[in-house]
Amino acid sequence: MDRFTVGIDIGGTNTVTGLVDGSGNVVARETLPTAEYTDGAAFVEDIAQTILRLEAARNATIDGIGIGAPNANYLTGTIGAGTANLMIKEEIPICRVLREKFGVDTVISNDADAAALGERIYGSAKECDNFILVTLGTGVGSGFFADGRLVHGRDCLAGELGHMTLIPGGRECTCGRRGCLETYTSARGICRTFRELAETNASLLPGNLDIGTATSREIGDLANQGNSVAVETFAKTAEYLAIGLANAVTFSNPEIIILMGGPTKVGDPLLQPLKRHFERNLLYIYKGSVSIELSRLDDNDAAIIGAAALTKIKPHTT
Amino acid sequence: MDRFTVGIDIGGTNTVTGLVDGSGNVVARETLPTAEYTDGAAFVEDIAQTILRLEAARNATIDGIGIGAPNANYLTGTIGAGTANLMIKEEIPICRVLREKFGVDTVISNDADAAALGERIYGSAKECDNFILVTLGTGVGSGFFADGRLVHGRDCLAGELGHMTLIPGGRECTCGRRGCLETYTSARGICRTFRELAETNASLLPGNLDIGTATSREIGDLANQGNSVAVETFAKTAEYLAIGLANAVTFSNPEIIILMGGPTKVGDPLLQPLKRHFERNLLYIYKGSVSIELSRLDDNDAAIIGAAALTKIKPHTT
Repeated sequence: MDRFTVGIDIGGTNTVTGLVDGSGNVVARETLPTAEYTDGAAFVEDIAQTILRLEAARNATIDGIGIGAPNANYLTGTIGAGTANLMIKEEIPICRVLREKFGVDTVISNDADAAALGERIYGSAKECDNFILVTLGTGVGSGFFADGRLVHGRDCLAGELGHMTLIPGGRECTCGRRGCLETYTSARGICRTFRELAETNASLLPGNLDIGTATSREIGDLANQGNSVAVETFAKTAEYLAIGLANAVTFSNPEIIILMGGPTKVGDPLLQPLKRHFERNLLYIYKGSVSIELSRLDDNDAAIIGAAALTKIKPHTT
Repeated sequence: MDRFTVGIDIGGTNTVTGLVDGSGNVVARETLPTAEYTDGAAFVEDIAQTILRLEAARNATIDGIGIGAPNANYLTGTIGAGTANLMIKEEIPICRVLREKFGVDTVISNDADAAALGERIYGSAKECDNFILVTLGTGVGSGFFADGRLVHGRDCLAGELGHMTLIPGGRECTCGRRGCLETYTSARGICRTFRELAETNASLLPGNLDIGTATSREIGDLANQGNSVAVETFAKTAEYLAIGLANAVTFSNPEIIILMGGPTKVGDPLLQPLKRHFERNLLYIYKGSVSIELSRLDDNDAAIIGAAALTKIKPHTT
């Protein structure tokens, strides 16, 4: 029997459960549709069944379970009540349930923190003591290392860059507030910007495109085909994101900002204007000292590996 | 012989050197006119002579020297070349010189970081691993502790909260950018808000007041006398500051935000609306978990105490 660590990446849309070997390779994985769950107990039970299936398929024993999730509380082992990007609205005592079921260490942390840990151990930040990992997805998450350590904060809730107020009084956010960075730069935010731009430019778009349901990936494909509305959508997204990232730099003075997540796959239509606006937005003392990079890890791998690694370290040291 | 720590507060106009006892009291001090020095070596030599005089006068032994200064580099122990507010334009290797002369730990850091340390060792954050110190003055500075440690960043330039973009495209800032938090919430920002409000409300102000040159202290006095324009000035300042502080919370998840500096002396006209707006602006996961407090350290002593406190932390480990 081989020993593996379970890494679970809970996102607003999907939950990916993987088996991670001692070298940090994801050797097996299965996906659950997070968005279809409204009941916490059913969700955790299906995760447990997934782990059992993976164990059986690989003839594996597991030595720990690490979970990256939105609104995760490391101290209580739960996903908090009322999490903005989940349909499940009650508190989910996921660590207790899985620990009782599998009898191994079970740890949860913010999903972006886990991803940052993945970058630090296996990715673009191997040699880097000061960096910020930003995930663009259903929402916008972040995790940051400062002075060689992952920053946790009072309740392990540091790094909610997506809910920095970017435009006071701006777009309504799922969190109940207005103008959060993620309302402009998440996959949903990008679709919203696209719909706004498309309203007055429908003739510039392919006739067979349903503007109301176009995904950020479809918009990204259009941008890479040179469609001006899609290009403008990513240019505006870059402008917003550049301000948010430049603000983040004023806090922690990083040397790298690593981006991951679906919307970053578009490449140049986002990255080129982003780098330009970012450098222009930087306070002079930081100019030329911060690079923006795309994660070189497979998105799901980084999050799963990082989650698994949570079981190997003691994240909260105070 | 009593043991003291030397705290040195280097400002553009004056440099105050003090002896700090184990309880954080400044028991003796001497002032040098920074602005009269153009030669770094002569400046440091006169600081050394000051320390020797203070030692002799108090029959003291010193166990460390801490320095708070503009453009300070914690890692190299220097004040950088070309510092805007100093006449001395070459790099000043102040830590090396004083360390060699006195044979004790000698540490330098920027003023806001030193102030944060002062709060951690002697002030409102004694028991607090996660807090942000915000200084409102000519500008807005900040230093923050996360997980029990002062956050430095790549070049020890973390904590420039004053240059977070609060209002994209907003007020011009001395940094060359627009909409920075400090353009709304520094002493200068407060005066600017007051002048804007006074333009259409001059009849509501005392006839003998020169609106164009009114200081933030004068506006504060008016607010405490109930003048509606002054009250509104601080209410608007509070609204801006609340967004900036709530954004800061999304980064480091602190339990306390400590405010210091001239404009905070106004008290309730700033603090009451600030606490209200702050709580409203907080992301739901932080609501009710962050308090805003005024520094309890004496104004004249805080910078010296903070500088002395620099010697009480573990060295930067990276």
